[in-house]
Amino acid sequence: MKVSAIITLKKDVLDPQGKVIHQALDGMGFKNISEVRQGKYFEIDVNENDPNKAKAVVEDMCEKLLANLVIENFKIIETQ
Amino acid sequence: MKVSAIITLKKDVLDPQGKVIHQALDGMGFKNISEVRQGKYFEIDVNENDPNKAKAVVEDMCEKLLANLVIENFKIIETQ
Repeated sequence: MKVSAIITLKKDVLDPQGKVIHQALDGMGFKNISEVRQGKYFEIDVNENDPNKAKAVVEDMCEKLLANLVIENFKIIETQ
Repeated sequence: MKVSAIITLKKDVLDPQGKVIHQALDGMGFKNISEVRQGKYFEIDVNENDPNKAKAVVEDMCEKLLANLVIENFKIIETQ
């Protein structure tokens, strides 16, 4: 089954890339935005039919490789 | 309100970055993965209280700047 992981910077961590996107959108006429933050998204197809086990595997992957837990948070979402 | 956009490569588009992550995970002992695909994630704080209007604004942003519709799909998610 497919499990998705969303990795975002923690609240207090500066996000210069998001700032630049904010400025670009502002310059294109999207004036009513207060903040843009960028994150990463992974869709992982795990050979596992139990949703809880699949999520646990992806959580493990996030902790060990995908996310830097010092500055990032992650969230696991079931896709299929 | 905060609206999130997830941008993923279309099914038929090669994702070399995802392949490399797959290999890295495989090398770390996560053997039961069949595919990893990477995408982008944006969390946009729009000054708009109507969820439908906020989503429409973010959809417009995706079409005009954030996503390359030739090779990418996007999905809008309401966060708050």
